[in-house]
Amino acid sequence: MKLYTYDRAPNPRRLAMFMQYKGIAIETQQVDLMKAEQLGEQFRAINPAQTVPALLLDDGTLLSEVIGICTYLEELHPDRPLLGTTALEKAQVISWDHRLFTGMVIPLADMLRNSAEAFRNRALPGPYDFAQLPELVERGRLQLHCILPELDAQLAGQAWLAGDGFTFADIDLLVAVDFMAWVKESVPAECTHLKAWYERAKAELA
Amino acid sequence: MKLYTYDRAPNPRRLAMFMQYKGIAIETQQVDLMKAEQLGEQFRAINPAQTVPALLLDDGTLLSEVIGICTYLEELHPDRPLLGTTALEKAQVISWDHRLFTGMVIPLADMLRNSAEAFRNRALPGPYDFAQLPELVERGRLQLHCILPELDAQLAGQAWLAGDGFTFADIDLLVAVDFMAWVKESVPAECTHLKAWYERAKAELA
Repeated sequence: MKLYTYDRAPNPRRLAMFMQYKGIAIETQQVDLMKAEQLGEQFRAINPAQTVPALLLDDGTLLSEVIGICTYLEELHPDRPLLGTTALEKAQVISWDHRLFTGMVIPLADMLRNSAEAFRNRALPGPYDFAQLPELVERGRLQLHCILPELDAQLAGQAWLAGDGFTFADIDLLVAVDFMAWVKESVPAECTHLKAWYERAKAELA
Repeated sequence: MKLYTYDRAPNPRRLAMFMQYKGIAIETQQVDLMKAEQLGEQFRAINPAQTVPALLLDDGTLLSEVIGICTYLEELHPDRPLLGTTALEKAQVISWDHRLFTGMVIPLADMLRNSAEAFRNRALPGPYDFAQLPELVERGRLQLHCILPELDAQLAGQAWLAGDGFTFADIDLLVAVDFMAWVKESVPAECTHLKAWYERAKAELA
């Protein structure tokens, strides 16, 4: 098994935190997105989607979605479960994973990729070029400020996002909150529950 | 347990097919999206996100993401598994679910919601208004025609999308292919493997 990733980028960071929390070590090669190594011939031969992370299994199967890789690794390493153990926990974790993706990660990625010069013609990840759409920057900001109070309200009544324990949903949210700095956003002062949760989550991963 | 849904819409249809295939019956109330019932006070009290489907559990917990509801129901009704049984199958199904969402469902929703008069100021689902961005129609079309040949190539070597058996990934794809008609798109003639798979998948659900 070999992992191709770039730990600094938000999406791969979700996997890095998952592995760190569970104490999983895999032979890893960093693919430097700052040098556009994911777009080179060498990496395209490994992952035609030209995205990281990508986990190459010993039989040649490639897993190239974070949630797929985490699902696979959780089955192999059930200790310190992060994807839930009961039916309801499993449902809540995957629900939040999806909700944070649509409500926070896509908006943040829209804000970054449709404004930064480094993403000119690279408004979407993957092998195809897409022009930047400046309107998506403001739309992303509006979406972001819709979900933040909702998350704050959710965390008013519970310590962790998806239920009683720390889960992958908290990792998703932690990475998304840190991603906000990339577009010069931060958690509003009035979101006190979200701020308190952020310190708890960081401590959990320390 | 009570399900609020609108079987005709693409996203709820994924759940309807999942339940039909597994033979799961739940007390159900249709929320008529054509009459904007999801935006009314009555439904907002049930699901503040104002989206369907939403599954209300007996303890008052609400599950409002399709993948979360399916995860919950698969645990309760493991017969005729649709989310995979081995570690690799589970990983492949959830990976495809996510990949189809980003690469096909969002592009199709962008095409529909940013062009149809019925979605004026409703370019994104949920409780908030968002202006239509006509540029997303063409971007959605480009994205759609990127993923279709990839799906065709994937299905050249295997009968089902996520591995040896029919899974929820096939349901996701079937609903997405049918969704194409809403924006006057169809599977290109040269995607023969995808076309053959479509007939197989429809037969599996008949």
